[in-house]
Amino acid sequence: MRVAGLISGTSVDGIDVAVVDIGESIQIVATLTVPYAPHVREAILAVSNAATHTATIARLNFLLGELFAEALRQVPVPLESIELIGSHGQTIFHEGEPADFLGRKVASTLQIGEGAVIAARTGIQTITDFRPADIAAGGKGAPLVPFLDYQLFRHAEIARIALNIGGIANVTVLPAGAAPEDVVAFDTGPGNILMDALAPPFDRDGERARAGNVNEALLQKLLADPYYHREPPKSCGREQYGAEFLRSSGIDIATAAELTVRTVALAVEGYPETREIIVSGGGAHNSYLMERLRATVQPRVTTSAEFGIGVDSKEAILFAVLAYQTHQRRPGNLPSATGARKPMILGKISMVP
Amino acid sequence: MRVAGLISGTSVDGIDVAVVDIGESIQIVATLTVPYAPHVREAILAVSNAATHTATIARLNFLLGELFAEALRQVPVPLESIELIGSHGQTIFHEGEPADFLGRKVASTLQIGEGAVIAARTGIQTITDFRPADIAAGGKGAPLVPFLDYQLFRHAEIARIALNIGGIANVTVLPAGAAPEDVVAFDTGPGNILMDALAPPFDRDGERARAGNVNEALLQKLLADPYYHREPPKSCGREQYGAEFLRSSGIDIATAAELTVRTVALAVEGYPETREIIVSGGGAHNSYLMERLRATVQPRVTTSAEFGIGVDSKEAILFAVLAYQTHQRRPGNLPSATGARKPMILGKISMVP
Repeated sequence: MRVAGLISGTSVDGIDVAVVDIGESIQIVATLTVPYAPHVREAILAVSNAATHTATIARLNFLLGELFAEALRQVPVPLESIELIGSHGQTIFHEGEPADFLGRKVASTLQIGEGAVIAARTGIQTITDFRPADIAAGGKGAPLVPFLDYQLFRHAEIARIALNIGGIANVTVLPAGAAPEDVVAFDTGPGNILMDALAPPFDRDGERARAGNVNEALLQKLLADPYYHREPPKSCGREQYGAEFLRSSGIDIATAAELTVRTVALAVEGYPETREIIVSGGGAHNSYLMERLRATVQPRVTTSAEFGIGVDSKEAILFAVLAYQTHQRRPGNLPSATGARKPMILGKISMVP
Repeated sequence: MRVAGLISGTSVDGIDVAVVDIGESIQIVATLTVPYAPHVREAILAVSNAATHTATIARLNFLLGELFAEALRQVPVPLESIELIGSHGQTIFHEGEPADFLGRKVASTLQIGEGAVIAARTGIQTITDFRPADIAAGGKGAPLVPFLDYQLFRHAEIARIALNIGGIANVTVLPAGAAPEDVVAFDTGPGNILMDALAPPFDRDGERARAGNVNEALLQKLLADPYYHREPPKSCGREQYGAEFLRSSGIDIATAAELTVRTVALAVEGYPETREIIVSGGGAHNSYLMERLRATVQPRVTTSAEFGIGVDSKEAILFAVLAYQTHQRRPGNLPSATGARKPMILGKISMVP
């Protein structure tokens, strides 16, 4: 089955598209990133962070549906050959831990990028909203990528960690010979989000971070955040590292880069048998960050490109694979990764005639 | 097939539940309205009207999912006998006419009440988000009720109009012997929304409106709004009759009741062959409103109860029927009513194992 995967990540840099053929194995047909126009990116960031009009969210949901469909059309693969679309959309809120709300405890997540629009524009059945079902089963709705990491990277004799450095950084711990229930995964903390905010749109090759000086006192203070020391499952959202964090911490870019590296290192230290770290996400392009990572962690550090998976397309591939699971009426979450009570069939299906 | 329908309407008074058996005909098994706690109703109204935090919308979406599932459990029908759920959820924004947004024309609609939560709590496949597919096809996403009105009320020799008076009032025009493409439907204007706001939570039996005096000068000014004179299809949302409208018009409750009656009458006058008006919705309980309606329009005025359809449950029944259509991979919109380019399969399916 030929399936397209679509996602716009926490960095809000553009729409990642992957077209994959799924059967006995997963074959990547094409991948592409379609950048957002600056005013669209600003509108997304505005609804992701602050008080806003409901109208803006509603309109943005439909506009992103159009943009996601247009992004798919830009992939050099005939649309007629694609049988199914899995679109993650854009997360504008994520709170995996239940919060007090109107007298109850409520965990929630909110993705936009209207599936009905994508289905109507492409004529292809489209699955969206992959996180709510996991939250409905008591999970944190994240991370979902371990499902793919398990399929792609598990090894009978080599213990590995898959590390994705998007806006937020997350790891999938794959012990040697792991069964699905042995997989542990969690957000380690900030990925590129702080660096992006301090050197917009992003610090190319980590040049500014490399030129700066790490504020070791501030770093130690930030590393004391109990989140980094808590046992998984755990997940965090971009709102935790937003304007308020930047303002109250006064963090600089060199310290932000180091915070990403050191929180990843803290996570990795918990799994001393690990022999390889496989990096993907925008952070894999940041040579300074990769250098600091290699200098700081014990295992060999490589990227998903070594396995034929472009560092920018892993998550889009994930949502193609998750859509396929749902289409086959099979679960797509790993309860050991998300904390859900049980495997769930993820997503909502928008049908076409 | 036994199907449950769920909706919370523009009046935001509670969750309407209907359980129906659908086969050759539609049999009503049970209907119920579960009122909202006041603080939940206030939170919904807050996100429906004004600037708000994205967090509130995300949390409310999940909370309403829980409340909708709990409402269904209160119906005296074994949950195990229900095979499918259609949940409209709560509209918090609706803009059927494209608006200028980030350099494009965007029509949009936003319903909350998380389907994944309803599916997880009930173990029943749940279909939500019925309006976006119609908007994606160039329709106004409303009204959807004509699909049901056509099935329930069309007559070979009698021209009828089905009138639903919820927060907003809408009509379905059913010419004698109508085919689907002959059905015309549109929002006539305010239903109970202005009266509810002026005498919260609502003006029981229209007592306060009856005791007041209609400000005829203001009424004439309001009736000059081009919306009331425009050809269908057309639809309006509660934001058009919100705090801003109340403040700028200074309307009183007697004039508000008369505005509802007169805008309905304007709509009815366009179809002089009509012999019966079949009223449903909360407005059917308002004896003053019904009296004024009977005095103002030509056709006989009755309620849907005469046809075995409780005036409060018609819309919940609708979403059971629309869910069934989607489950059968059949369209659920009437393009002649919504203005869509073509019939669409409505909704998004949340699956259960």
